[in-house]
Amino acid sequence: MVAGIIGATGYAGAELARLLSGHPKTDKLIFSSVSFEGERIENIYPNFLGRVCGTLLKADEVVASSDVVFAALPHGVGEQYAASCMERKIHYIDLSADFRFDDDEATYSAWYGKQYQYPELHKNSVYGLPELNRKRMRELAAKGPVIVGNPGCYPTGASLGAFPAIAKGLALADNAIIVNSVSGTTGGGRELSRSFHYAECADSCAPYKVASHRHSPEIAHNFAAMAAMTGNAAPSLIFTPHLAPMNRGIVSTIYISLVKEWRVTTGSAAAALPPSKEIEAKTDEIRNLYTDFYRDEPFVQILPAGITAATNRVRQSNYCDISVHLDSGGTTLIVAAAIDNMMKGAAGQAVQNMNILFGFDERAGLEAIPALF
Amino acid sequence: MVAGIIGATGYAGAELARLLSGHPKTDKLIFSSVSFEGERIENIYPNFLGRVCGTLLKADEVVASSDVVFAALPHGVGEQYAASCMERKIHYIDLSADFRFDDDEATYSAWYGKQYQYPELHKNSVYGLPELNRKRMRELAAKGPVIVGNPGCYPTGASLGAFPAIAKGLALADNAIIVNSVSGTTGGGRELSRSFHYAECADSCAPYKVASHRHSPEIAHNFAAMAAMTGNAAPSLIFTPHLAPMNRGIVSTIYISLVKEWRVTTGSAAAALPPSKEIEAKTDEIRNLYTDFYRDEPFVQILPAGITAATNRVRQSNYCDISVHLDSGGTTLIVAAAIDNMMKGAAGQAVQNMNILFGFDERAGLEAIPALF
Amino acid sequence: MVAGIIGATGYAGAELARLLSGHPKTDKLIFSSVSFEGERIENIYPNFLGRVCGTLLKADEVVASSDVVFAALPHGVGEQYAASCMERKIHYIDLSADFRFDDDEATYSAWYGKQYQYPELHKNSVYGLPELNRKRMRELAAKGPVIVGNPGCYPTGASLGAFPAIAKGLALADNAIIVNSVSGTTGGGRELSRSFHYAECADSCAPYKVASHRHSPEIAHNFAAMAAMTGNAAPSLIFTPHLAPMNRGIVSTIYISLVKEWRVTTGSAAAALPPSKEIEAKTDEIRNLYTDFYRDEPFVQILPAGITAATNRVRQSNYCDISVHLDSGGTTLIVAAAIDNMMKGAAGQAVQNMNILFGFDERAGLEAIPALF
Amino acid sequence: MVAGIIGATGYAGAELARLLSGHPKTDKLIFSSVSFEGERIENIYPNFLGRVCGTLLKADEVVASSDVVFAALPHGVGEQYAASCMERKIHYIDLSADFRFDDDEATYSAWYGKQYQYPELHKNSVYGLPELNRKRMRELAAKGPVIVGNPGCYPTGASLGAFPAIAKGLALADNAIIVNSVSGTTGGGRELSRSFHYAECADSCAPYKVASHRHSPEIAHNFAAMAAMTGNAAPSLIFTPHLAPMNRGIVSTIYISLVKEWRVTTGSAAAALPPSKEIEAKTDEIRNLYTDFYRDEPFVQILPAGITAATNRVRQSNYCDISVHLDSGGTTLIVAAAIDNMMKGAAGQAVQNMNILFGFDERAGLEAIPALF
Repeated sequence: MVAGIIGATGYAGAELARLLSGHPKTDKLIFSSVSFEGERIENIYPNFLGRVCGTLLKADEVVASSDVVFAALPHGVGEQYAASCMERKIHYIDLSADFRFDDDEATYSAWYGKQYQYPELHKNSVYGLPELNRKRMRELAAKGPVIVGNPGCYPTGASLGAFPAIAKGLALADNAIIVNSVSGTTGGGRELSRSFHYAECADSCAPYKVASHRHSPEIAHNFAAMAAMTGNAAPSLIFTPHLAPMNRGIVSTIYISLVKEWRVTTGSAAAALPPSKEIEAKTDEIRNLYTDFYRDEPFVQILPAGITAATNRVRQSNYCDISVHLDSGGTTLIVAAAIDNMMKGAAGQAVQNMNILFGFDERAGLEAIPALF
Repeated sequence: MVAGIIGATGYAGAELARLLSGHPKTDKLIFSSVSFEGERIENIYPNFLGRVCGTLLKADEVVASSDVVFAALPHGVGEQYAASCMERKIHYIDLSADFRFDDDEATYSAWYGKQYQYPELHKNSVYGLPELNRKRMRELAAKGPVIVGNPGCYPTGASLGAFPAIAKGLALADNAIIVNSVSGTTGGGRELSRSFHYAECADSCAPYKVASHRHSPEIAHNFAAMAAMTGNAAPSLIFTPHLAPMNRGIVSTIYISLVKEWRVTTGSAAAALPPSKEIEAKTDEIRNLYTDFYRDEPFVQILPAGITAATNRVRQSNYCDISVHLDSGGTTLIVAAAIDNMMKGAAGQAVQNMNILFGFDERAGLEAIPALF
Repeated sequence: MVAGIIGATGYAGAELARLLSGHPKTDKLIFSSVSFEGERIENIYPNFLGRVCGTLLKADEVVASSDVVFAALPHGVGEQYAASCMERKIHYIDLSADFRFDDDEATYSAWYGKQYQYPELHKNSVYGLPELNRKRMRELAAKGPVIVGNPGCYPTGASLGAFPAIAKGLALADNAIIVNSVSGTTGGGRELSRSFHYAECADSCAPYKVASHRHSPEIAHNFAAMAAMTGNAAPSLIFTPHLAPMNRGIVSTIYISLVKEWRVTTGSAAAALPPSKEIEAKTDEIRNLYTDFYRDEPFVQILPAGITAATNRVRQSNYCDISVHLDSGGTTLIVAAAIDNMMKGAAGQAVQNMNILFGFDERAGLEAIPALF
Repeated sequence: MVAGIIGATGYAGAELARLLSGHPKTDKLIFSSVSFEGERIENIYPNFLGRVCGTLLKADEVVASSDVVFAALPHGVGEQYAASCMERKIHYIDLSADFRFDDDEATYSAWYGKQYQYPELHKNSVYGLPELNRKRMRELAAKGPVIVGNPGCYPTGASLGAFPAIAKGLALADNAIIVNSVSGTTGGGRELSRSFHYAECADSCAPYKVASHRHSPEIAHNFAAMAAMTGNAAPSLIFTPHLAPMNRGIVSTIYISLVKEWRVTTGSAAAALPPSKEIEAKTDEIRNLYTDFYRDEPFVQILPAGITAATNRVRQSNYCDISVHLDSGGTTLIVAAAIDNMMKGAAGQAVQNMNILFGFDERAGLEAIPALF
């Protein structure tokens, strides 16, 4: 099978090239780049020298010769390739935001400032979060070529962390779910910017785009989708991303107000006392519920009591580790979800989606075990 | 004036030694260490070689020869020195938790597992957060020697970030204030531990002690104190500390549910749209209120619109930078507060407290301007 | 095939566990740990939770049930297991220094302060640097079970960088070869120490154990071995390791005085002028010679002109990248060699050696492509 | 006194602004920037908000109103301001390379590709390394306004580390002195570049511009100057800079072949044995000689036996820490010299030079004690 990557010289594209090079089902890999057309990818990424090699083609050439196309392009330029792929009857997996909002063009336009050029393509595209839409992806793939909108990095961890609480009716719809995320710098991509100049982001941490990050509507969409799917009301969302001095990883700390039935009615103020036995018991109960929810998921793991999700324990892997906690007043569920933003948050998930569309083992090419250090 | 440091070889003690060496009012510096008694401090800290030098004495010797004593000891061992200082009629500034809870021994015991040995000392000690208790510190100092309980690092930033909202009646008491903090590693001190082994904390971020950190009751205490002082009801607290790969700095992102009068009544769900003009105007209004609240504070700065608090902009300084934001639904105030945990969060604040007690210029010895890189 | 790891909870042992879990020829993995016997490895390394699992046995149990044994133990305690493996007629790969000096017990004792307990084992053990001893490893394996002394991390990069110059007679024997290496912190292992306390090694670089590091005699041994093998005189060695704030990676910058025939006779002082065309031509010539030398090596790569070896381009891979340079006076060859110290410098090379002993594809289980970020 | 900074928005300029703001003799600070003329400096450097404030002027305006001018400009554009300052009879301290080579225009042109525009200015300018030229700076200042060529960062540490060996006749002129330096990223300045994009320089180390860095001729010049001054022959130079993931700091490891009289004649090969008592004794002897050489220097410190120079022990200070070692064969002196590249390597040294020119206490404004963490 020939896998094609459009936009292979950005970070997500390069990560895809790395993963697909080691994938047991891809015999050949071809790629394109607008910025470096005609050059060799191993000259742009010297870590690929002697390992992942080839000339960067035009995007159209990649589409014309591939059995599956991955697009790692800026927002707003990929629809034409999706259209070409549909014509050629091959699957198209888009890592930009262009196919993440289904036919909700209003939300897409409000946040990304663009219109859909091919509105009809969005009627049957699917948002590629396997834990939400695996079934739909399989159904569509059974019928023909599929357009997948691969999720954003923050939305992946935030959604996986909140889904069980929403699906099982734990989340109080009156209060917003607060998602406080800390990300490494590769989320900002390969383009140079002051925020990622070493001396100005090393040894520092800060929030950015407070309440105005473009992943907000995507997360809110996912919360609403899970609520609708399970007959619950969807809480609204407050999302604050932070940048920390690390290459990879996102840890999202998620605060979910519990409905009355799930609260521990200690009556005491939240921080007056250390966590009680009652709090621990309720935490265990919710952890079991989370574990049960993800029982069959190959890449989502609920951590046992005493272990907190951390980005270095999923680094360079496709896993999402989740730990479940309760505030000492017993009113609010606190969930920590850790992913590698380049893997489960981008390229890894795209490969997982390819595996689903083609009916491959969902773990194929994604067996990497995190190394801790 | 002779300044004495008990416990000078821990990180807070060493930072005090560094600051007091450059303080215009301290002619001489003496110090003690249980672990390294009889050794020279510059052998424990080779960065002090030729710069900050001297033999580490016994704690009693330091108390006997000082005009002011700083104690940077583990929790639960400093009261005896406080008692000695009161006898010698000299000020005593304690950087442990022992004098942070005034006479609320119940809370102290519940979280620190110890009883007060000298309960009477706690009746007139003062919690040394200048922005809360400067007046009380001055009043006590006018009467005699003072015991100051120097604040914890997380409580300093969290309290300064939330105080104006509580004091001005913006905070809805029904909902907990959520404090989500990210700290550098020096907060963990000099003692070796797996959490601070380079290879296991570099390039990683994770929450820890979720809803069970011992700074929780201190923050809650401060919220209650400010509420009581201004005739407001105190919201409860949910506090989650995180560790990030940096040496210094804490940024606290604080979520405060607004009372109805302060909400922007868009009626729309929180993340549906990017922030509107109305949201920006309300944010400006709250920012002005914050700016006004701290108008006369030498070390607290409210940042202008467009600038978000970041730890590298206060590094190695005694400043607390605060930025004010509003969620896009207009229901929740989001405040980011950044400090250097070793400075405003520990040794710098202790020096600031010394300046207050002695009537020195409050900035003396604390003029360092942050370097960004 | 059952692979056994003795000492699986140190960093090299854990890295072996990670690699062997993904190795196509190992059906089962068992491991031991003195420190954590009876516990589960995934509790010591939570990154292994749900991924690499099992109970830590006694070392003897591992030896008794394995088809090949890896020992990642402190120096001086592994010989007994080597003896047991020889009795059981299975290969034994030792990652300590115990089998790195063949029968040169004098040097081993001078630097490691221990005597050989089983001197006869050292007569037929082999130093496991494939690029030096692949042929000998194969010959020994053809005859029976083999003891491999897996190389140290610094010696691997230093030796691979200098070998072609020594073998081809470029190195002037009168002057010492200077090896200046910079390493990440995992080289120091899992044990806590002040040198690896985050706050004291972040944002800093320094040499350590100058001219007294225990890898010095091993590097010198390798230089002498290559010189003897190719009929050249061996230059002596000056070796200075440095610690830098990174998890993985060693870059060795190697200064080799050239014999007269290989010098560019500009006659000008070294740094008076930028590199000339003549210098570039000579550099190309030497680069070709290096490329030729490693033509058939699967893991050693000579970089083209204009690319300098860097640790992030080999991170988490078994590659050694080498770049070749010449000082502007044309008298000294400067070679930069980069490896991942946990991979080619420890566990990866051990797996490579297993592949050689068993006649597997030498790349099996070592296909990881470095990710750059 | 009014201090002026031309080019205040680069890193060296901003560091000067920070230092001069706290200098006891500068009453007022004015600055210019071509890139940001008319903007306020605290908007470019938000860490300066409320701390170092003012509008960025034109360079000519700065020259016209200052009592001393610092220029932190790109190479090749500052001479006109030097000329203006001489006309206005005020001191001019240039942080570019333009005045580092005295009247050796040939070397300057060969490496920087530019001609002197005002050759006569270079006849009486002085290279501002106080440990080499303090006397000359004072003599010139006694006569009139002075042009100082402030040294480069690498040359400062490399020269200070090698000077005593050259001056005392220890260095064998036949062999090149090898300077192997590792630098933090601020040396690359504020301009964005791929080398300093966080994700591509974090967790990595590599040499760059091997044998072709423009600081090479400056170091060689300094070696020659010290040799000439003391009647010795100057060894040539091989210089290799490396980049490591840290903000500040340079550690230079310097290899100096000893003349016969200073060698320890063990006769044994260099790395065959651990260092002997004889080696230690000779090291002490050389250390004493170094200590003696810098006896009166306020910012150069020779470390005692057992302590190795490290960048974090001089961070944010103007010190140069030097440790002295000997290879185990007793043939080569190994010196480690650590500086903060922004301080002693740039802005701090410029302030030191101002203090010398004006006859201020040489430590004025440079009292910062390094913090270790």
